[in-house]
Amino acid sequence: MTFLVLQSDFGIIDGAVSAMVGVALKVDPTLSIHHVTHEIKPYSPFEASYRLIQVIPYWPNECVFVSVVDPGVGTQRKSIVVKLKSGQLIVTPDNGSVTHLRELIDEVKIISKKHYHSHQSSTFHGRDLYAYIGAKLASGQLSFEEIGDNLEIDDLQFVPLIPVLVSDDKVIGNVDVLDSRFGSLWSSIDEKEFMTLGYEIGDFVKVSLYNSGQLVYQNEVLFGHSFSDVGIGSPVVYINSLKKVSIAINQGHFSQAYGIETGHQWEVVFQRD
Amino acid sequence: MTFLVLQSDFGIIDGAVSAMVGVALKVDPTLSIHHVTHEIKPYSPFEASYRLIQVIPYWPNECVFVSVVDPGVGTQRKSIVVKLKSGQLIVTPDNGSVTHLRELIDEVKIISKKHYHSHQSSTFHGRDLYAYIGAKLASGQLSFEEIGDNLEIDDLQFVPLIPVLVSDDKVIGNVDVLDSRFGSLWSSIDEKEFMTLGYEIGDFVKVSLYNSGQLVYQNEVLFGHSFSDVGIGSPVVYINSLKKVSIAINQGHFSQAYGIETGHQWEVVFQRD
Amino acid sequence: MTFLVLQSDFGIIDGAVSAMVGVALKVDPTLSIHHVTHEIKPYSPFEASYRLIQVIPYWPNECVFVSVVDPGVGTQRKSIVVKLKSGQLIVTPDNGSVTHLRELIDEVKIISKKHYHSHQSSTFHGRDLYAYIGAKLASGQLSFEEIGDNLEIDDLQFVPLIPVLVSDDKVIGNVDVLDSRFGSLWSSIDEKEFMTLGYEIGDFVKVSLYNSGQLVYQNEVLFGHSFSDVGIGSPVVYINSLKKVSIAINQGHFSQAYGIETGHQWEVVFQRD
Repeated sequence: MTFLVLQSDFGIIDGAVSAMVGVALKVDPTLSIHHVTHEIKPYSPFEASYRLIQVIPYWPNECVFVSVVDPGVGTQRKSIVVKLKSGQLIVTPDNGSVTHLRELIDEVKIISKKHYHSHQSSTFHGRDLYAYIGAKLASGQLSFEEIGDNLEIDDLQFVPLIPVLVSDDKVIGNVDVLDSRFGSLWSSIDEKEFMTLGYEIGDFVKVSLYNSGQLVYQNEVLFGHSFSDVGIGSPVVYINSLKKVSIAINQGHFSQAYGIETGHQWEVVFQRD
Repeated sequence: MTFLVLQSDFGIIDGAVSAMVGVALKVDPTLSIHHVTHEIKPYSPFEASYRLIQVIPYWPNECVFVSVVDPGVGTQRKSIVVKLKSGQLIVTPDNGSVTHLRELIDEVKIISKKHYHSHQSSTFHGRDLYAYIGAKLASGQLSFEEIGDNLEIDDLQFVPLIPVLVSDDKVIGNVDVLDSRFGSLWSSIDEKEFMTLGYEIGDFVKVSLYNSGQLVYQNEVLFGHSFSDVGIGSPVVYINSLKKVSIAINQGHFSQAYGIETGHQWEVVFQRD
Repeated sequence: MTFLVLQSDFGIIDGAVSAMVGVALKVDPTLSIHHVTHEIKPYSPFEASYRLIQVIPYWPNECVFVSVVDPGVGTQRKSIVVKLKSGQLIVTPDNGSVTHLRELIDEVKIISKKHYHSHQSSTFHGRDLYAYIGAKLASGQLSFEEIGDNLEIDDLQFVPLIPVLVSDDKVIGNVDVLDSRFGSLWSSIDEKEFMTLGYEIGDFVKVSLYNSGQLVYQNEVLFGHSFSDVGIGSPVVYINSLKKVSIAINQGHFSQAYGIETGHQWEVVFQRD
């Protein structure tokens, strides 16, 4: 069985996602259809990419992901199918939605126009193209080889990622995303990069947060296994479930408490005194 | 396989939808259960109806839809099953939730009280009646013919829809719904009605928006295929995925920008100079 | 077929729930996976427990529920499987998430560490432990007997519930939860407890609401079958779909209208004059 797994920035407040599911079940009523999330920040291929890397390792290899964050619908942006080394496929507009997966990509093909539906809207390719092609692939009615011409991996669109800076006494990264329900900050800094500073569980870490160069938070924060290593209401630095360095308040809401948001202008600095 | 597809105004924050799914799986554990949305505006049969017409054409004919927006629960409002010409069924209270489907209806039956559960709450017929009957129909344990007495289509409750006015130089309609994540206005005006004004892609269209007769927006807006035909932050008139005339700001949020809401008091006028 | 039914406080805005589903489908791709809700108030085992009792009676007996509200992740809190008299299983941290189910419990086992994944994060046991064990149980790869050592029911963690006080002319309870979309208050008072006051449908009931002892609402409210027994905008006392006494405004929003929230400090008093 090959799973069809959908994500988008459509929300679930109207019928858009349901129409995609219907289209897929018309292709093959036996498909097993699932979801990543449909609450991707509107027009954010960065977040689409981030959510894919968050879940893809936990899904079976027999999976076709359909990711529709598509600010360029109606432009000449390509529609592609990305094949990972695992065998998993991703159907998506070519706009950076696979940025974090770069190292995992095996092959990319451009969806040939001959596979398009005859009647296609100008604004909802999620329903009219991506869900349809995803269902064709998941059902085995269409193979990856038949999709269309090859695209070199280096010719894919990627969202620019700011590299983490590691020096002797400092590691500098960005706030990639928020764990929005709990208010935790998930930085771009890997466990390994952070560990070059030589910290051990139980140490206090000097944490600074900057918004466009302006200091907005600075504190010595305990490095723990998880939130519960500190008292309720206390901050903690920990390695999250994606192996990234994160900052939280135990049973509080760090991002609201200090007005922290995400993106290139939000910098995290861990400094060894 | 016949699909069971649920929609309601219950939200997904508590266990209401899950209880409906459980009831259906107790009727037949092999049912394939899906959803339109459960975020219909509370007590709005208009929106229930709108979301049904938005998705129904994209689902297979072997579908039983259950739509539970039910401000009249506990009154003498009828509970009905609507059969479309496609063969698709809709289980719903008779309160206007099938208004936009009128032309597609083949036959209507009133659910006979003999099919009711013996233990039924006074306030949650979504769980105790509609999901249960929907599951009986989808599983084949109950046929449409067995549901109960016929109801004439003209005797159904319909939400009053304001007709679109088409004159030589003007088309007047309403703001039906918002594409809430993206802020687009979806008007009640069909592509065909709009095209009587003779516009072509690339033309500028005079758009006026009124709230209860008060002008709240007026501009010359480009008529494009999609958002991406204009620069980021610019407004655009386009035909949406339901073939209705819509207004958006590319990567902006039109409805928030101008405080536009939906309903009969919100009028859209396209005028040819 | 045994269903796997997930609930959590993770929300559906990121990939957390999807990762849980993926993990389960890796254990057994034929699993039928469903959900209660993932919008449990963060860190609230009380609400987790409340949502379980709300839905469990409506699901088939062949069900494994996985409930992940886990403020103690990373502490020594136990991970358990609770077997109900119905045969339904619940996989959960031992933190009060089965409080309302106490009378329904047959047996409890502590999940033996030998069943754990080898690679386990410190903060996301929903994905790495609970979904995994739930899938093993639902697929039949692991039996309840194999889970681990027994735990006495009396040794489970329970959230303290304030008992309802019934006297000759008064019944005093708490606001347990809100039916948030509709604004209704669901009290901790059972239909039976309320009926000791001798009210009949159509009577007016004296309702008082207190926040930490401070009166915030007092009115004579009609006791009806449902909202629709009163005019639009009028308050009503009724028995909800869980057989608890509830207060609503027909097509209004009681909790917003009077700023009512939930918890031990919010007291409801029904008084017979």
